[in-house]
Amino acid sequence: MATTSYAEQANAAARGRPRDATRDEALRRAALEVMAEVGYRALTMDAVAAKARAGKATIYRRWESKLDLVIDTVNQLVHQNIPEPDTGSLTGDLHEFLSAFAAFLSGPTGKAAQALVGELPHEPELATAFRETFLVAQRDVLRGILDRGTARGEVRLDAPRGMAVELAGAALTYRLMLTGDPLDATFVDRLVDQVLLPLLRP
Amino acid sequence: MATTSYAEQANAAARGRPRDATRDEALRRAALEVMAEVGYRALTMDAVAAKARAGKATIYRRWESKLDLVIDTVNQLVHQNIPEPDTGSLTGDLHEFLSAFAAFLSGPTGKAAQALVGELPHEPELATAFRETFLVAQRDVLRGILDRGTARGEVRLDAPRGMAVELAGAALTYRLMLTGDPLDATFVDRLVDQVLLPLLRP
Repeated sequence: MATTSYAEQANAAARGRPRDATRDEALRRAALEVMAEVGYRALTMDAVAAKARAGKATIYRRWESKLDLVIDTVNQLVHQNIPEPDTGSLTGDLHEFLSAFAAFLSGPTGKAAQALVGELPHEPELATAFRETFLVAQRDVLRGILDRGTARGEVRLDAPRGMAVELAGAALTYRLMLTGDPLDATFVDRLVDQVLLPLLRP
Repeated sequence: MATTSYAEQANAAARGRPRDATRDEALRRAALEVMAEVGYRALTMDAVAAKARAGKATIYRRWESKLDLVIDTVNQLVHQNIPEPDTGSLTGDLHEFLSAFAAFLSGPTGKAAQALVGELPHEPELATAFRETFLVAQRDVLRGILDRGTARGEVRLDAPRGMAVELAGAALTYRLMLTGDPLDATFVDRLVDQVLLPLLRP
Protein backbone atom coordinates (compact mmCIF):
# COMPACT_ATOMS: atom_id res chain seq x y z
CA MET A 1 0.00 0.00 0.00
CA ALA A 2 2.81 2.39 0.83
CA THR A 3 4.30 1.93 -2.65
CA THR A 4 0.94 2.63 -4.25
CA SER A 5 0.76 5.82 -2.26
CA TYR A 6 4.27 6.91 -3.23
CA ALA A 7 3.37 6.25 -6.86
CA GLU A 8 0.15 8.16 -6.43
CA GLN A 9 1.86 11.10 -4.85
CA ALA A 10 4.66 11.23 -7.39
CA ASN A 11 2.08 10.99 -10.11
CA ALA A 12 -0.07 13.69 -8.63
CA ALA A 13 2.93 15.98 -8.06
CA ALA A 14 4.23 15.43 -11.58
CA ARG A 15 0.89 16.19 -13.17
CA GLY A 16 -0.26 18.86 -10.75
CA ARG A 17 -3.23 16.67 -9.78
CA PRO A 18 -4.66 16.49 -6.28
CA ARG A 19 -3.91 13.27 -4.39
CA ASP A 20 -6.12 10.23 -4.70
CA ALA A 21 -9.52 11.17 -3.37
CA THR A 22 -10.79 7.58 -3.32
CA ARG A 23 -7.93 6.54 -1.05
CA ASP A 24 -8.63 9.46 1.29
CA GLU A 25 -12.28 8.42 1.39
CA ALA A 26 -11.37 4.87 2.43
CA LEU A 27 -9.12 6.19 5.19
CA ARG A 28 -11.81 8.53 6.46
CA ARG A 29 -14.34 5.71 6.44
CA ALA A 30 -11.94 3.60 8.49
CA ALA A 31 -11.46 6.48 10.95
CA LEU A 32 -15.22 6.78 11.33
CA GLU A 33 -15.60 3.06 12.00
CA VAL A 34 -12.82 3.01 14.59
CA MET A 35 -14.31 6.06 16.29
CA ALA A 36 -17.76 4.48 16.42
CA GLU A 37 -16.23 1.35 17.96
CA VAL A 38 -13.85 2.73 20.57
CA GLY A 39 -14.43 6.49 20.80
CA TYR A 40 -12.08 9.38 20.15
CA ARG A 41 -9.76 8.97 23.11
CA ALA A 42 -8.96 5.33 22.37
CA LEU A 43 -8.64 5.87 18.60
CA THR A 44 -5.09 5.40 17.31
CA MET A 45 -3.58 5.97 13.88
CA ASP A 46 -2.46 2.32 14.04
CA ALA A 47 -6.05 1.11 14.42
CA VAL A 48 -7.21 3.28 11.51
CA ALA A 49 -4.33 2.03 9.36
CA ALA A 50 -5.16 -1.60 10.20
CA LYS A 51 -8.87 -1.10 9.45
CA ALA A 52 -8.05 0.49 6.07
CA ARG A 53 -5.26 -2.04 5.35
CA ALA A 54 -2.92 0.90 4.86
CA GLY A 55 0.47 1.81 6.26
CA LYS A 56 0.59 4.26 9.15
CA ALA A 57 2.94 6.46 7.09
CA THR A 58 0.22 6.76 4.44
CA ILE A 59 -2.09 8.26 7.02
CA TYR A 60 0.51 10.62 8.45
CA ARG A 61 1.28 11.97 4.97
CA ARG A 62 -2.34 13.09 4.74
CA TRP A 63 -3.16 14.16 8.31
CA GLU A 64 -0.65 15.28 10.87
CA SER A 65 -2.55 14.10 13.96
CA LYS A 66 -5.60 12.15 14.99
CA LEU A 67 -7.37 15.44 15.70
CA ASP A 68 -6.74 16.49 12.06
CA LEU A 69 -7.95 13.16 10.74
CA VAL A 70 -11.12 13.10 12.84
CA ILE A 71 -12.07 16.71 12.12
CA ASP A 72 -11.43 16.35 8.40
CA THR A 73 -13.52 13.17 8.41
CA VAL A 74 -16.46 14.83 10.16
CA ASN A 75 -16.15 17.87 7.92
CA GLN A 76 -16.20 15.85 4.69
CA LEU A 77 -19.13 13.77 5.88
CA VAL A 78 -21.13 16.84 6.77
CA HIS A 79 -20.49 18.42 3.36
CA GLN A 80 -21.38 15.22 1.51
CA ASN A 81 -24.46 14.38 3.53
CA ILE A 82 -26.11 17.59 4.58
CA PRO A 83 -28.08 18.91 1.63
CA GLU A 84 -29.07 22.52 1.08
CA PRO A 85 -32.58 22.13 -0.27
CA ASP A 86 -34.28 24.96 -2.13
CA THR A 87 -37.69 23.56 -2.98
CA GLY A 88 -39.44 26.92 -3.15
CA SER A 89 -41.36 26.53 0.12
CA LEU A 90 -40.52 26.69 3.81
CA THR A 91 -42.38 23.44 4.50
CA GLY A 92 -40.64 21.63 1.65
CA ASP A 93 -37.18 22.84 2.64
CA LEU A 94 -37.63 21.96 6.32
CA HIS A 95 -38.94 18.47 5.56
CA GLU A 96 -36.20 17.74 3.03
CA PHE A 97 -33.35 19.03 5.16
CA LEU A 98 -34.44 17.48 8.45
CA SER A 99 -35.23 14.11 6.83
CA ALA A 100 -31.76 13.99 5.28
CA PHE A 101 -30.09 15.10 8.50
CA ALA A 102 -32.03 12.52 10.53
CA ALA A 103 -31.01 9.77 8.09
CA PHE A 104 -27.39 10.94 8.26
CA LEU A 105 -27.42 10.83 12.08
CA SER A 106 -29.07 7.40 12.08
CA GLY A 107 -26.17 5.96 10.08
CA PRO A 108 -22.58 5.22 11.11
CA THR A 109 -21.82 8.92 11.55
CA GLY A 110 -24.35 9.14 14.35
CA LYS A 111 -22.46 6.62 16.47
CA ALA A 112 -19.16 8.37 15.79
CA ALA A 113 -20.67 11.77 16.62
CA GLN A 114 -22.03 10.38 19.87
CA ALA A 115 -18.62 8.95 20.76
CA LEU A 116 -17.10 12.39 20.12
CA VAL A 117 -19.66 14.27 22.21
CA GLY A 118 -18.76 12.40 25.40
CA GLU A 119 -15.20 13.57 25.05
CA LEU A 120 -15.75 17.24 24.23
CA PRO A 121 -15.37 18.39 27.87
CA HIS A 122 -11.88 16.87 28.02
CA GLU A 123 -10.74 17.90 24.54
CA PRO A 124 -11.07 21.66 24.02
CA GLU A 125 -9.49 21.64 20.52
CA LEU A 126 -11.80 18.85 19.44
CA ALA A 127 -14.77 20.68 20.95
CA THR A 128 -13.99 23.87 19.01
CA ALA A 129 -13.46 22.02 15.74
CA PHE A 130 -16.58 19.86 16.23
CA ARG A 131 -18.70 22.94 16.82
CA GLU A 132 -17.24 24.82 13.86
CA THR A 133 -17.81 21.97 11.42
CA PHE A 134 -20.68 19.76 12.54
CA LEU A 135 -22.86 22.27 14.35
CA VAL A 136 -22.24 25.40 12.28
CA ALA A 137 -22.83 23.58 8.98
CA GLN A 138 -26.31 22.39 9.89
CA ARG A 139 -27.18 25.68 11.59
CA ASP A 140 -26.20 27.64 8.48
CA VAL A 141 -28.37 25.50 6.24
CA LEU A 142 -31.34 26.04 8.56
CA ARG A 143 -30.71 29.79 8.65
CA GLY A 144 -30.65 29.86 4.84
CA ILE A 145 -33.99 28.04 4.77
CA LEU A 146 -35.50 30.59 7.17
CA ASP A 147 -34.03 33.52 5.22
CA ARG A 148 -35.62 32.34 1.99
CA GLY A 149 -38.89 31.65 3.85
CA THR A 150 -38.81 35.17 5.26
CA ALA A 151 -38.22 36.67 1.82
CA ARG A 152 -41.29 34.75 0.54
CA GLY A 153 -43.42 35.97 3.47
CA GLU A 154 -43.67 32.47 5.02
CA VAL A 155 -41.92 33.47 8.26
CA ARG A 156 -43.35 36.25 10.40
CA LEU A 157 -40.94 39.03 11.20
CA ASP A 158 -41.00 38.56 14.98
CA ALA A 159 -40.69 34.74 14.85
CA PRO A 160 -38.16 33.19 17.28
CA ARG A 161 -35.81 32.23 14.44
CA GLY A 162 -32.79 31.57 16.62
CA MET A 163 -34.75 29.26 18.91
CA ALA A 164 -36.32 27.43 15.96
CA VAL A 165 -32.89 26.74 14.47
CA GLU A 166 -31.49 25.62 17.82
CA LEU A 167 -34.47 23.38 18.61
CA ALA A 168 -34.32 21.60 15.26
CA GLY A 169 -30.74 20.52 15.97
CA ALA A 170 -31.54 19.79 19.60
CA ALA A 171 -34.55 17.61 18.83
CA LEU A 172 -32.61 15.33 16.48
CA THR A 173 -29.49 14.96 18.61
CA TYR A 174 -31.55 14.36 21.79
CA ARG A 175 -33.19 11.31 20.18
CA LEU A 176 -29.87 10.12 18.76
CA MET A 177 -27.80 10.54 21.88
CA LEU A 178 -30.12 10.39 24.86
CA THR A 179 -33.53 8.84 24.43
CA GLY A 180 -32.68 6.40 21.64
CA ASP A 181 -36.18 6.92 20.17
CA PRO A 182 -36.37 6.57 16.37
CA LEU A 183 -35.24 9.39 14.08
CA ASP A 184 -37.80 8.52 11.44
CA ALA A 185 -40.14 10.32 9.05
CA THR A 186 -42.93 10.36 11.64
CA PHE A 187 -40.74 12.25 14.06
CA VAL A 188 -39.51 14.73 11.45
CA ASP A 189 -43.12 15.38 10.38
CA ARG A 190 -44.16 16.07 13.97
CA LEU A 191 -41.19 18.34 14.54
CA VAL A 192 -41.94 20.39 11.42
CA ASP A 193 -45.75 20.42 11.60
CA GLN A 194 -46.34 20.62 15.36
CA VAL A 195 -43.41 22.79 16.37
CA LEU A 196 -41.38 24.61 13.71
CA LEU A 197 -44.15 25.82 11.37
CA PRO A 198 -46.43 27.02 14.22
CA LEU A 199 -43.51 28.95 15.74
CA LEU A 200 -42.45 30.55 12.45
CA ARG A 201 -45.53 31.17 10.31
CA PRO A 202 -47.35 34.51 10.16
CA MET B 1 -28.39 -1.27 43.48
CA ALA B 2 -31.38 -0.44 45.63
CA THR B 3 -31.96 -4.05 46.63
CA THR B 4 -28.41 -4.36 47.91
CA SER B 5 -28.80 -1.16 49.87
CA TYR B 6 -32.12 -2.20 51.39
CA ALA B 7 -30.71 -5.60 52.32
CA GLU B 8 -27.76 -3.91 53.88
CA GLN B 9 -29.99 -1.51 55.72
CA ALA B 10 -32.04 -4.41 57.05
CA ASN B 11 -28.84 -6.13 58.17
CA ALA B 12 -27.58 -2.99 59.82
CA ALA B 13 -30.93 -2.49 61.51
CA ALA B 14 -30.92 -6.09 62.73
CA ARG B 15 -27.54 -5.45 64.30
CA GLY B 16 -28.94 -2.23 65.80
CA ARG B 17 -26.70 0.00 63.70
CA PRO B 18 -28.24 2.25 60.99
CA ARG B 19 -26.33 2.54 57.75
CA ASP B 20 -24.26 5.68 57.54
CA ALA B 21 -26.04 7.86 54.96
CA THR B 22 -23.36 10.56 55.14
CA ARG B 23 -20.76 7.99 54.18
CA ASP B 24 -22.86 6.87 51.20
CA GLU B 25 -23.19 10.47 50.10
CA ALA B 26 -19.42 10.96 50.20
CA LEU B 27 -18.90 7.82 48.15
CA ARG B 28 -21.46 8.88 45.57
CA ARG B 29 -19.87 12.32 45.35
CA ALA B 30 -16.50 10.67 44.75
CA ALA B 31 -18.03 8.46 42.03
CA LEU B 32 -19.45 11.55 40.33
CA GLU B 33 -16.10 13.33 40.42
CA VAL B 34 -14.23 10.35 39.01
CA MET B 35 -16.83 9.96 36.27
CA ALA B 36 -16.59 13.65 35.32
CA GLU B 37 -12.80 13.29 35.16
CA VAL B 38 -12.29 10.04 33.27
CA GLY B 39 -15.69 8.90 32.01
CA TYR B 40 -17.64 5.74 32.77
CA ARG B 41 -15.49 3.24 30.94
CA ALA B 42 -12.27 4.26 32.69
CA LEU B 43 -13.93 4.59 36.13
CA THR B 44 -12.73 1.97 38.62
CA MET B 45 -13.88 1.16 42.14
CA ASP B 46 -10.25 1.71 43.17
CA ALA B 47 -10.29 5.28 41.88
CA VAL B 48 -13.58 6.00 43.66
CA ALA B 49 -12.21 4.49 46.89
CA ALA B 50 -9.05 6.59 46.63
CA LYS B 51 -11.01 9.78 45.95
CA ALA B 52 -13.27 9.12 48.96
CA ARG B 53 -10.36 7.94 51.14
CA ALA B 54 -12.27 4.73 51.72
CA GLY B 55 -11.41 1.07 51.39
CA LYS B 56 -12.54 -0.73 48.26
CA ALA B 57 -14.35 -3.27 50.44
CA THR B 58 -16.46 -0.44 51.90
CA ILE B 59 -17.69 0.37 48.40
CA TYR B 60 -18.38 -3.24 47.46
CA ARG B 61 -20.42 -3.71 50.63
CA ARG B 62 -22.76 -0.98 49.34
CA TRP B 63 -22.78 -1.50 45.54
CA GLU B 64 -22.05 -4.77 43.80
CA SER B 65 -20.60 -3.28 40.60
CA LYS B 66 -19.61 0.01 39.06
CA LEU B 67 -22.86 0.00 37.09
CA ASP B 68 -24.78 -0.22 40.39
CA LEU B 69 -22.73 2.57 41.92
CA VAL B 70 -23.08 4.92 38.95
CA ILE B 71 -26.80 4.36 38.48
CA ASP B 72 -27.52 4.76 42.19
CA THR B 73 -25.47 7.96 42.16
CA VAL B 74 -27.34 9.45 39.21
CA ASN B 75 -30.66 8.35 40.69
CA GLN B 76 -29.99 10.00 44.06
CA LEU B 77 -28.79 13.19 42.42
CA VAL B 78 -31.87 13.43 40.25
CA HIS B 79 -34.18 12.95 43.22
CA GLN B 80 -32.33 15.51 45.33
CA ASN B 81 -31.97 18.13 42.60
CA ILE B 82 -34.99 17.96 40.35
CA PRO B 83 -37.85 19.78 42.05
CA GLU B 84 -41.55 19.23 41.39
CA PRO B 85 -42.85 22.78 41.50
CA ASP B 86 -46.55 23.49 41.98
CA THR B 87 -46.77 27.27 41.89
CA GLY B 88 -50.37 27.39 40.69
CA SER B 89 -49.56 28.51 37.14
CA LEU B 90 -48.14 26.88 34.02
CA THR B 91 -45.69 29.74 33.48
CA GLY B 92 -44.49 29.64 37.08
CA ASP B 93 -44.05 25.86 37.11
CA LEU B 94 -42.16 25.80 33.79
CA HIS B 95 -39.83 28.61 34.82
CA GLU B 96 -39.13 27.10 38.22
CA PHE B 97 -38.55 23.57 36.98
CA LEU B 98 -36.42 24.45 33.95
CA SER B 99 -34.30 26.95 35.92
CA ALA B 100 -33.55 24.32 38.55
CA PHE B 101 -32.85 21.64 35.94
CA ALA B 102 -30.55 24.00 34.00
CA ALA B 103 -28.64 24.82 37.20
CA PHE B 104 -28.37 21.11 38.03
CA LEU B 105 -26.97 20.33 34.57
CA SER B 106 -24.53 23.25 34.77
CA GLY B 107 -22.97 21.78 37.93
CA PRO B 108 -20.74 18.74 38.36
CA THR B 109 -23.56 16.38 37.40
CA GLY B 110 -23.64 17.87 33.93
CA LYS B 111 -20.08 16.82 33.21
CA ALA B 112 -20.71 13.34 34.57
CA ALA B 113 -23.92 13.02 32.54
CA GLN B 114 -22.05 14.06 29.41
CA ALA B 115 -19.34 11.50 30.08
CA LEU B 116 -22.05 8.85 30.42
CA VAL B 117 -23.86 9.79 27.22
CA GLY B 118 -20.82 9.11 25.03
CA GLU B 119 -20.75 5.56 26.31
CA LEU B 120 -24.42 4.66 26.06
CA PRO B 121 -24.06 3.01 22.60
CA HIS B 122 -21.49 0.58 24.00
CA GLU B 123 -23.19 -0.05 27.34
CA PRO B 124 -26.77 -1.25 26.88
CA GLU B 125 -27.40 -1.85 30.61
CA LEU B 126 -26.11 1.60 31.43
CA ALA B 127 -28.23 3.08 28.63
CA THR B 128 -31.40 1.47 29.95
CA ALA B 129 -30.72 2.52 33.52
CA PHE B 130 -29.74 6.07 32.49
CA ARG B 131 -32.96 6.48 30.53
CA GLU B 132 -35.10 5.04 33.32
CA THR B 133 -33.64 7.32 35.98
CA PHE B 134 -32.32 10.52 34.47
CA LEU B 135 -34.65 10.95 31.50
CA VAL B 136 -37.87 9.52 32.90
CA ALA B 137 -37.61 11.56 36.10
CA GLN B 138 -37.45 14.92 34.34
CA ARG B 139 -40.05 13.90 31.75
CA ASP B 140 -42.49 12.88 34.47
CA VAL B 141 -42.14 16.20 36.26
CA LEU B 142 -42.84 18.06 33.01
CA ARG B 143 -45.86 15.88 32.28
CA GLY B 144 -47.20 16.64 35.77
CA ILE B 145 -46.78 20.37 35.09
CA LEU B 146 -48.71 20.07 31.81
CA ASP B 147 -51.44 17.95 33.43
CA ARG B 148 -52.05 20.58 36.09
CA GLY B 149 -51.92 23.32 33.43
CA THR B 150 -54.49 21.41 31.37
CA ALA B 151 -56.78 21.03 34.37
CA ARG B 152 -56.58 24.82 34.92
CA GLY B 153 -57.36 25.53 31.24
CA GLU B 154 -53.88 26.89 30.54
CA VAL B 155 -53.04 24.21 27.96
CA ARG B 156 -55.21 23.78 24.88
CA LEU B 157 -56.56 20.30 24.34
CA ASP B 158 -54.85 19.71 20.97
CA ALA B 159 -51.47 21.10 22.08
CA PRO B 160 -48.41 19.01 21.09
CA ARG B 161 -47.74 18.01 24.70
CA GLY B 162 -45.37 15.15 23.90
CA MET B 163 -43.24 17.34 21.65
CA ALA B 164 -43.18 20.15 24.22
CA VAL B 165 -41.93 17.78 26.92
CA GLU B 166 -39.31 16.29 24.59
CA LEU B 167 -38.10 19.68 23.35
CA ALA B 168 -37.65 21.06 26.86
CA GLY B 169 -35.24 18.24 27.70
CA ALA B 170 -33.62 18.42 24.26
CA ALA B 171 -32.99 22.18 24.44
CA LEU B 172 -31.16 21.98 27.75
CA THR B 173 -29.05 18.92 26.97
CA TYR B 174 -28.13 20.28 23.51
CA ARG B 175 -26.56 23.37 25.09
CA LEU B 176 -24.89 21.29 27.80
CA MET B 177 -23.49 18.59 25.57
CA LEU B 178 -23.11 20.03 22.08
CA THR B 179 -23.06 23.78 21.67
CA GLY B 180 -21.61 24.71 25.05
CA ASP B 181 -23.76 27.88 25.07
CA PRO B 182 -24.82 29.04 28.54
CA LEU B 183 -27.69 27.35 30.37
CA ASP B 184 -28.69 30.56 32.10
CA ALA B 185 -31.88 32.38 33.08
CA THR B 186 -31.99 34.22 29.74
CA PHE B 187 -32.07 30.95 27.85
CA VAL B 188 -34.71 29.40 30.11
CA ASP B 189 -36.86 32.53 29.70
CA ARG B 190 -36.60 32.34 25.90
CA LEU B 191 -37.38 28.63 25.89
CA VAL B 192 -40.50 29.12 28.02
CA ASP B 193 -41.76 32.41 26.55
CA GLN B 194 -40.85 31.99 22.85
CA VAL B 195 -41.41 28.26 22.46
CA LEU B 196 -43.23 26.30 25.17
CA LEU B 197 -46.02 28.73 26.07
CA PRO B 198 -46.86 29.58 22.42
CA LEU B 199 -47.05 25.85 21.61
CA LEU B 200 -49.21 24.98 24.61
CA ARG B 201 -51.53 27.88 25.36
CA PRO B 202 -55.12 28.07 24.11
